[in-house]
Amino acid sequence: MPPDIKPGQVQLVGAGPGSADLLTLRAVRAVEAAQALLFDALISEEVLAIAPPGCVRIQTGKRAGKASMDQGEINRLMLLLARRGLRVVRLKGGDPSIFGRSGEERDFLERHGVAVEVIPGVTAASAAAAQFAFPLTHREEARRVIFATARVRDGAVVEGGWQAGADPETTLALYMARDAARLVSDRLIAEGRCGDTPALAVENAGAPHARLLSATLSNLADVVEAAAPTGPVLLVIGDVAARARGYAVQGDTPDIIARRAGL
Amino acid sequence: MPPDIKPGQVQLVGAGPGSADLLTLRAVRAVEAAQALLFDALISEEVLAIAPPGCVRIQTGKRAGKASMDQGEINRLMLLLARRGLRVVRLKGGDPSIFGRSGEERDFLERHGVAVEVIPGVTAASAAAAQFAFPLTHREEARRVIFATARVRDGAVVEGGWQAGADPETTLALYMARDAARLVSDRLIAEGRCGDTPALAVENAGAPHARLLSATLSNLADVVEAAAPTGPVLLVIGDVAARARGYAVQGDTPDIIARRAGL
Repeated sequence: MPPDIKPGQVQLVGAGPGSADLLTLRAVRAVEAAQALLFDALISEEVLAIAPPGCVRIQTGKRAGKASMDQGEINRLMLLLARRGLRVVRLKGGDPSIFGRSGEERDFLERHGVAVEVIPGVTAASAAAAQFAFPLTHREEARRVIFATARVRDGAVVEGGWQAGADPETTLALYMARDAARLVSDRLIAEGRCGDTPALAVENAGAPHARLLSATLSNLADVVEAAAPTGPVLLVIGDVAARARGYAVQGDTPDIIARRAGL
Repeated sequence: MPPDIKPGQVQLVGAGPGSADLLTLRAVRAVEAAQALLFDALISEEVLAIAPPGCVRIQTGKRAGKASMDQGEINRLMLLLARRGLRVVRLKGGDPSIFGRSGEERDFLERHGVAVEVIPGVTAASAAAAQFAFPLTHREEARRVIFATARVRDGAVVEGGWQAGADPETTLALYMARDAARLVSDRLIAEGRCGDTPALAVENAGAPHARLLSATLSNLADVVEAAAPTGPVLLVIGDVAARARGYAVQGDTPDIIARRAGL
């Protein structure tokens, strides 16, 4: 069933965190009807396989040695394809509204007369929590969750706002944080968060090959560096991180899951 | 295709924010294979219709005059059904790991020998952002997003942590906030957030009948009270709220969408 959007418009579609079965039905239908598909490097082959055979596929992120496009190139390409009357789907990992640049892409396209629809997705922190058995909020332990990045444009690091992550009842989820663990730990401890606070790093959150690294705020950077992750890394800092367990439900048999849970 | 989980275990499944097509494929498969379904009051008929005919359906939240169960009753009921060997699906609005009590329910069930799987979902803030055309994070406008509630147990209000929401580069998304707008505005302004900060309230975020109320932090409570929402309300406070537009894409024709966007 094709989505109710006419050719020549652009859909910014959340692909969720990796596994194709974590796409929403609405996202699946959009991809099935796509005539041009622009996708980030982190979109899996399994997800790309949903697009129809005749669909033009364009990779916008780095993979297999190919250089990534800058945001201006991506914008101009979406505009060009939309003006040719194609159903354009821009497929993004996670949710387009959370660190997905949906605002920038919408601004550009609407300024040039192209209508935009956003289809939401499961964000990486939700997927990591489900996969590794910890909640992001929990009664008397985590009243709130902050989604942040440890990077800003041009490689310079965010200077302000760390005190919010120092609150003991806050879960801090840091996206795209592979190289930021030491900086983040130092800043949070300087702001007063206890070094013994449970912390974890999840590589490839939501994907079947996700990896969980458990630590405390004090030794998080050492643990991450020793593991040398090559995929995207989500850091989670807060008491809820102590509940995480190092296995993926996805792909395991129920007996294995039950045994690992000590049942 | 039934999910790979044996009878007698419990799946805590994120149903997303309202529309059935915002369920993930994994969630749909779990509901299709459910033998017992426990669902919150906010789960739509459209979503419930996915369950097979023979499935036992049990409503746990208030609806149509029926009283809601307390958490202890829900826990005991899940345990009882799981021990009878049924595939039990506990269907929750949004994502189970964000204000969904997945930690509490997991603790209880595992303590009693029942294995638990969580299937993540699209959270209400992501759905509201997609539906009403604003991002939750945006370059130079919103470096981070906080998901919080304005309530704690027993009806008493959260006392600490508001300074984090006062940061001008933070988007604050408050869940289950229908009656909290005045308190929240007063506290944030007292903590130094500008009264002119764009703010909005979304009733029934993600559902086809969602309603957007646009305001500033100063007049948010008056706007919400005047609108007298009866559904669940999400408050969004931050510069990104100024980008929201008061129509739902879902259900509109592309021509209407384009016209409203000024195209």
